[in-house]
Amino acid sequence: MTSRSKKPKRSVRSRTARPARKIKGAKYVYLFDEIRLAERAAGSWEGVRALLGGKGANLAEMTKLKIPVPPGFVVTTEACNAFLAAGGRFPKGMWEQVLAAVDALERATGKKFGHADNPLLVSCRSGAKFSMPGMMDTVLNIGLNDEVAEALARQTGDERFVFDAYRRLVQMFGTVVLGVSDRPFNERLEAHRARRGVWNDAELPAEDLRALTGEFKRIVEEHAKRPFPADAREQLELATSAVFRSWNGKRAQDYRKAAGIPDDLGTAVNIVTMVFGNRGDDSGTGVMTTRNVTVGENHLEGDMLMNAQGEDVVAGTRKTLPIAELARLAPAADKELRRIARTLEKHYREVQDIEFTIEQGKLWMLQTRDAKRTAQAAIRIAVELTKEKLISKAEAVRRVTPEHVDYFLHPQLDAAARSAAKEKGDLIATGLNVSPGGAIGQIVFDADKAEHWKRQLKKEVILVRPETRPDDVHGMLAAQGVLTSRGGRTSHAALVARQFGIPAVVGVSSLEVDVDHGELRTSGGKVLKEGDWLSIDGATGEVFAGQLETVVPDLTDPWFVELLSWADGFRRLGVWANADYARDAERARKFGAEGIGLCRTEHMFFEPERLPIVQSMILARTAEQREEQLAKLLPMQRADFIALFKAMDGLPVTIRLIDPPLHEFLPSRDDLRTAVTELETRIRLKDGDAAALERDLRAKSKMLESVEAMREQNPMLGLRGVRLGIHMPELVRMQVRAILEAACECARAGVKLKPKIMIPLAATSAELKFGRDLLEEEARKVLKEQGMKLPYQFGTMIEVPRAALVAGRIAESAEFFSFGTNDLTQTTFGISRDDAETGFLSEYLQKGILTRNPFATIDQNGVGYLMQLGVKLGRERRKNLEIGICGEHGGDPDSIAFCHRIGLDYVSCSPFRVPVARLAAAHAALGEAKDNR
Amino acid sequence: MTSRSKKPKRSVRSRTARPARKIKGAKYVYLFDEIRLAERAAGSWEGVRALLGGKGANLAEMTKLKIPVPPGFVVTTEACNAFLAAGGRFPKGMWEQVLAAVDALERATGKKFGHADNPLLVSCRSGAKFSMPGMMDTVLNIGLNDEVAEALARQTGDERFVFDAYRRLVQMFGTVVLGVSDRPFNERLEAHRARRGVWNDAELPAEDLRALTGEFKRIVEEHAKRPFPADAREQLELATSAVFRSWNGKRAQDYRKAAGIPDDLGTAVNIVTMVFGNRGDDSGTGVMTTRNVTVGENHLEGDMLMNAQGEDVVAGTRKTLPIAELARLAPAADKELRRIARTLEKHYREVQDIEFTIEQGKLWMLQTRDAKRTAQAAIRIAVELTKEKLISKAEAVRRVTPEHVDYFLHPQLDAAARSAAKEKGDLIATGLNVSPGGAIGQIVFDADKAEHWKRQLKKEVILVRPETRPDDVHGMLAAQGVLTSRGGRTSHAALVARQFGIPAVVGVSSLEVDVDHGELRTSGGKVLKEGDWLSIDGATGEVFAGQLETVVPDLTDPWFVELLSWADGFRRLGVWANADYARDAERARKFGAEGIGLCRTEHMFFEPERLPIVQSMILARTAEQREEQLAKLLPMQRADFIALFKAMDGLPVTIRLIDPPLHEFLPSRDDLRTAVTELETRIRLKDGDAAALERDLRAKSKMLESVEAMREQNPMLGLRGVRLGIHMPELVRMQVRAILEAACECARAGVKLKPKIMIPLAATSAELKFGRDLLEEEARKVLKEQGMKLPYQFGTMIEVPRAALVAGRIAESAEFFSFGTNDLTQTTFGISRDDAETGFLSEYLQKGILTRNPFATIDQNGVGYLMQLGVKLGRERRKNLEIGICGEHGGDPDSIAFCHRIGLDYVSCSPFRVPVARLAAAHAALGEAKDNR
Repeated sequence: MTSRSKKPKRSVRSRTARPARKIKGAKYVYLFDEIRLAERAAGSWEGVRALLGGKGANLAEMTKLKIPVPPGFVVTTEACNAFLAAGGRFPKGMWEQVLAAVDALERATGKKFGHADNPLLVSCRSGAKFSMPGMMDTVLNIGLNDEVAEALARQTGDERFVFDAYRRLVQMFGTVVLGVSDRPFNERLEAHRARRGVWNDAELPAEDLRALTGEFKRIVEEHAKRPFPADAREQLELATSAVFRSWNGKRAQDYRKAAGIPDDLGTAVNIVTMVFGNRGDDSGTGVMTTRNVTVGENHLEGDMLMNAQGEDVVAGTRKTLPIAELARLAPAADKELRRIARTLEKHYREVQDIEFTIEQGKLWMLQTRDAKRTAQAAIRIAVELTKEKLISKAEAVRRVTPEHVDYFLHPQLDAAARSAAKEKGDLIATGLNVSPGGAIGQIVFDADKAEHWKRQLKKEVILVRPETRPDDVHGMLAAQGVLTSRGGRTSHAALVARQFGIPAVVGVSSLEVDVDHGELRTSGGKVLKEGDWLSIDGATGEVFAGQLETVVPDLTDPWFVELLSWADGFRRLGVWANADYARDAERARKFGAEGIGLCRTEHMFFEPERLPIVQSMILARTAEQREEQLAKLLPMQRADFIALFKAMDGLPVTIRLIDPPLHEFLPSRDDLRTAVTELETRIRLKDGDAAALERDLRAKSKMLESVEAMREQNPMLGLRGVRLGIHMPELVRMQVRAILEAACECARAGVKLKPKIMIPLAATSAELKFGRDLLEEEARKVLKEQGMKLPYQFGTMIEVPRAALVAGRIAESAEFFSFGTNDLTQTTFGISRDDAETGFLSEYLQKGILTRNPFATIDQNGVGYLMQLGVKLGRERRKNLEIGICGEHGGDPDSIAFCHRIGLDYVSCSPFRVPVARLAAAHAALGEAKDNR
Repeated sequence: MTSRSKKPKRSVRSRTARPARKIKGAKYVYLFDEIRLAERAAGSWEGVRALLGGKGANLAEMTKLKIPVPPGFVVTTEACNAFLAAGGRFPKGMWEQVLAAVDALERATGKKFGHADNPLLVSCRSGAKFSMPGMMDTVLNIGLNDEVAEALARQTGDERFVFDAYRRLVQMFGTVVLGVSDRPFNERLEAHRARRGVWNDAELPAEDLRALTGEFKRIVEEHAKRPFPADAREQLELATSAVFRSWNGKRAQDYRKAAGIPDDLGTAVNIVTMVFGNRGDDSGTGVMTTRNVTVGENHLEGDMLMNAQGEDVVAGTRKTLPIAELARLAPAADKELRRIARTLEKHYREVQDIEFTIEQGKLWMLQTRDAKRTAQAAIRIAVELTKEKLISKAEAVRRVTPEHVDYFLHPQLDAAARSAAKEKGDLIATGLNVSPGGAIGQIVFDADKAEHWKRQLKKEVILVRPETRPDDVHGMLAAQGVLTSRGGRTSHAALVARQFGIPAVVGVSSLEVDVDHGELRTSGGKVLKEGDWLSIDGATGEVFAGQLETVVPDLTDPWFVELLSWADGFRRLGVWANADYARDAERARKFGAEGIGLCRTEHMFFEPERLPIVQSMILARTAEQREEQLAKLLPMQRADFIALFKAMDGLPVTIRLIDPPLHEFLPSRDDLRTAVTELETRIRLKDGDAAALERDLRAKSKMLESVEAMREQNPMLGLRGVRLGIHMPELVRMQVRAILEAACECARAGVKLKPKIMIPLAATSAELKFGRDLLEEEARKVLKEQGMKLPYQFGTMIEVPRAALVAGRIAESAEFFSFGTNDLTQTTFGISRDDAETGFLSEYLQKGILTRNPFATIDQNGVGYLMQLGVKLGRERRKNLEIGICGEHGGDPDSIAFCHRIGLDYVSCSPFRVPVARLAAAHAALGEAKDNR
């Protein structure tokens, strides 16, 4: 027997454990003051939230903190799961526990559930682990019936209040529990309003409410084929079942799918003693956050109403008061509320979003949860909570997301203008916030027109479409922003907009886009036409009629600056910038860049006064002609580098030698061909001065011949980078000379520098060595001429797969590596970014064939594999090999986390992404980076 | 002590062995009959060749075999190396050993070295491990001086013979040993010939030769500042030194560098008793091979002369006789020669190239070595030696090289025409044979003209240049063959020609290419002009004036067929073919292909009657329009596949779905643009019928618009392969339908088949799955409609790096892999083959940055690494995954060896490469494949 003792036993034990607990009195119900038992059962705060749901856990937590919460209890998510698993039957013992808990409420309140004397009323609400706002059901005022209502009316002397509560119970019960449609109820309400000539239910007198209660009960009976239950316990039982069932309602399932919430969590049910803020002038209700969540200032902020219920505050039917008024209207409650707010912030170490009710002078807390906030507020709050010692610096850094930092890098709709527009009723709709930033422009309904208006007419436009398709992309690229009435977060419009950083709001189903008539119609009946101004906020999803102001957020915001300086303290990755000119370098440095990881020298060649020289150099027929042009370029390049070195005094500067194929510097082949054809035709038809035409034709033909000779089928894979340096060494030699002459001049002027010369596109160690030897010779020559010693390095870009595969040998001729992940992604996938990103890549993302755009976030399985291999092989050969990344991925948080994990030394990104990269690098070091599997 | 007994002892012993031998009487001299001692010292036959040189080793070997070789001995390569290392001094003991060996020769011959009575004369020749023809020096007739000559003249009664030998000794000694120029000697000869009025030295009478000997001695004394040494031993000593020194002569060094022979081998010196074939009518001399080495027939073949010396046979001054004549002229010697030839073949298991001399009836063998042969002969000889049981089948297969098989696949100059041309003196030069095949064409001196003549005038041309440069490539591609007067095996011309399979002869320094005057001048004073006919043989390097016949070698040659069938018995790799049409498939099958590894369906789309349908399909605006065109294409594709399946009955057929971007099927963008510009200009200038022009313009503009919309910057990396299938599923669905309908029809007709459907260019597992699911659905539908069950497979090409990196996941949706190494090489290197192969890749090969063209031979470190990884990951996921290669590398022997090593199942190549692949695959299996590191 011993031989099979161990494993089966354990397995049997663990299998029987749960059923045993369930069968023999498993605990399904926790009073708010039993949270310690829940903690013991669940093992952790996370566990308590899973068991009791977020709302229930917080109510219990507040009870533990001695904060006044109306007595109540939670039926657990486990009970819900058991209920659903059993096909809609409460697990054994649950209902008895509920009844015992009701007894406990009766004891705590001195009221009686279902009794006419001093009746106990309760609410019954769902509450899952993760907030699913509006997705599941609620029944209020449980415990009322005819007898209780009459008694209560007598006791309170407030018939209107009682029958208002009662008619609400009957309607909620009818719709939520018994599945009756809202329509018949609303028709009755409408009839009474019409009869009384009022616009608002709140204006109906008590007698109408009493009548409505009776009418509602008849509706229930008629539609549900059963009477409204008078028994309070039956009401509670049926309401609890209904809340459980609502977990599997279609709406809830869809929401979970979209939000990525697992289906097996279940919902808890919160059963709480009702308190009423509409019991007189010493009653009231409010919602608030413990700090301002727009800019982050540290004071209570919210809305309240005296003698009102929660719905009144939210519904906007009465003008609310700012929370600051409470001090005047109910000084004692105000004082206590402030104390509680502070207690909650200290306890949760986070700004709270609170609901409260004052019932005849007594303050009750109905809900608390972490408050949502804007990017600006998030940063200030994180910094200030740290200074208040509520959280650590690491926690502050973790709490700020790259999106928060990103906010500081986009123009935004001005907050004041936004408020004013809302006042004016210009907020015409709200949709899905799929690509952040504020955008203002004139409405166009057609991609071609968008492009035309932008390019030819120099108008700023918002492209408005029912939805977009791949052939709309040129119009999207021309637009300030994009608005669609259909489609979700992964629609074509959303994907393309995010990809190109175009502010966008999609899926605004309340708007009707009528392309044929050139109209945009709101649900409120407003009509906007082509050319009308529109303002959209891609961060909030708001759509405004008219031309709002935008503001560029303040990068010198002191909290922003302080938070990033903390982030710097945690990160291990260096953050450098890609900058071609001194002005870019200065900006990058201001944003915190610690070096230049990529200076693209070819951009300098395109400047108008240089391009003709560059062209003459390329077209030179003899070595002397070429040298002559290069001699003109040398002082210009030298001046470029001097400015760059000075701007980055003390920091490393990486200069990439010329990369693109030379034909990019020559006139367009298409234009030349058109000109030649036209000239030939005119000569044939004897149009104009024959001699002049012939002269022109000869010149154009000659240029065309040169351009044709350099033409490539696939320039991306052509005579570029180190290949070009080997093919035409004079050019790169000039560049090396310019770099080192500039370095010598700067060094003499006291600038601290160490130029890093980067040779692009090596695929084999031999070509890199060949290319480097050519340049090293020139470098030594310059230093000898200048009579100086100066440290400099040669390195290479790893941007084709082969370079990564043979990185060990490559490292023999390279003192540093920089991953050029744009090209590496193109070659690893065999995808031309120029062609694909607006084409089949969008299609792939929409169809789910790709989950991420590999040009935005590093493809870890493919490109990432090569990078890891490159790092390993490179460092095996050269122990201290410095390795960075200078592709656009260097500014993407998930890619930065990956670069951190594989041990790169730095990331280099565009100057505007430097702050995001600093934060993301800190997150990576703090082990919090998300994985992009 | 026991603890350190073993290893050190052994090491000490082995280290002291060599120095000990050298210092204390190392053996530097081996008599021919001492070969067993040499074998003991050197340890192996290879070692003996290294020690004694090839010639000496074979002479000693023949002596051992009791074959009559004139007595002689070898001074070893070790002695040479010691001599050179010591700055030109014989190592200790060597000279004494030489003298002892001379004594042994005296004993063996009964003659005396340096004595007037019965004098011993010897030759002194170099002989390295590897043959270096003409590169080092020889001195004959050593041992003659005035006294010996007079005595010998008396003894032989042949004064002419003796003084001819003597004057030769003096000249050779003067030039080879003492460094005197040939010029003064030749001037004297010229003077004597002039005086006697004869053209030939052989016609000079004895008295002139006697006089010349005296004159030559005076020349030596005058130029070398020392007299010709009369002492035989001094002659021998100085001659030996001179041969040693010649190892480091410039000529020899250059040759070794070019041929890849190491510099530290050294040369041996062969000192052999002189025998004379010019001692009367019972004397003679000849050179021969033991079989015909042109076609491989099994009979002696060679040239001989009676009463003549070896030089007379080679020099061509007397008309030689075929070796068959020997039976009549010297029957006993003939009989013995045949016996010896057979003995040598048996001993060396290889056809021999032999030199012999008959001195007064006595046959002497002067040299034997493995004979060079043509491809045709090599194959027949290998087969026949196997049948004679001299070698095994494996050895026969090993001895045949891919180049031999390749011969059968190119047109060749007709052998009879070649002989006739030589007779006529049309062989005008011989150069480096860098790219095989016979080519005939008219001379042009300019690449543009070559292209023009070929394309416009439809003339076949040979491009003749001093050397070629990258901008000549278009002319090379237009030419039948290429001839250059400069450059070596790695010159631009050689590389490009090999790359594209263009027959070429380069570095023909005896020809003068005068581009300016349009003349090709031979060293013999012949002048050929532009337009004259020229025939070149890239396999032999021969250049003929005139228009020779070519023949296509016979693939049914029985020896060729038999040898390849033996190869099939050894190989493990399958050999399949790339074939798009049934006719290609039939040819491939005849050549031995065991399946179709790649049928490119797009080629079928380009056929003239189909292209308009394909274009309409692409340009369709609605799904119905597209389906309509596809319905027209379906029966055509089905017919294609039926023919293919029938041709390959019983063998696997892999059909690749459409791969290239669709714009390849549309009219040229350039042509459309030109037409539009021209029309616009004409309309503007009112040239012609305005309405007609406008109509034409509208049509062209519309087409241009479609073409522009599909245009891609880098089509190689564009909307191709599986991407296209996902983007336009109707098209590939039609192809799958055509394949399976064809398969069903064939199966019903009794054809055995298993279609393999190949989806190209997958980079991610998700896109392959997506693409495959689309097609699988259609496949099931067709089979259901047809009411048949039929095995079929879906597989993919691995042709971008990412596919190899994630091959495990890819294998989930692929039942087979085929490496598309053309594209894989492009993407791994980041090189566009179209652009680079005639551009910087040639430059790289010339500069030695690449040692092999990676598009010809798999780059093992990069592309090969990915292939290995792909095989490993793929088979881990799917154990029996079938993996092949269908890139052009599938026909390259070194790449085939690599494919064998990494465990592929088959290679697929063009039908004409199938025989080469069969052989290469056998070599790989026999472990003889060369490595291309």
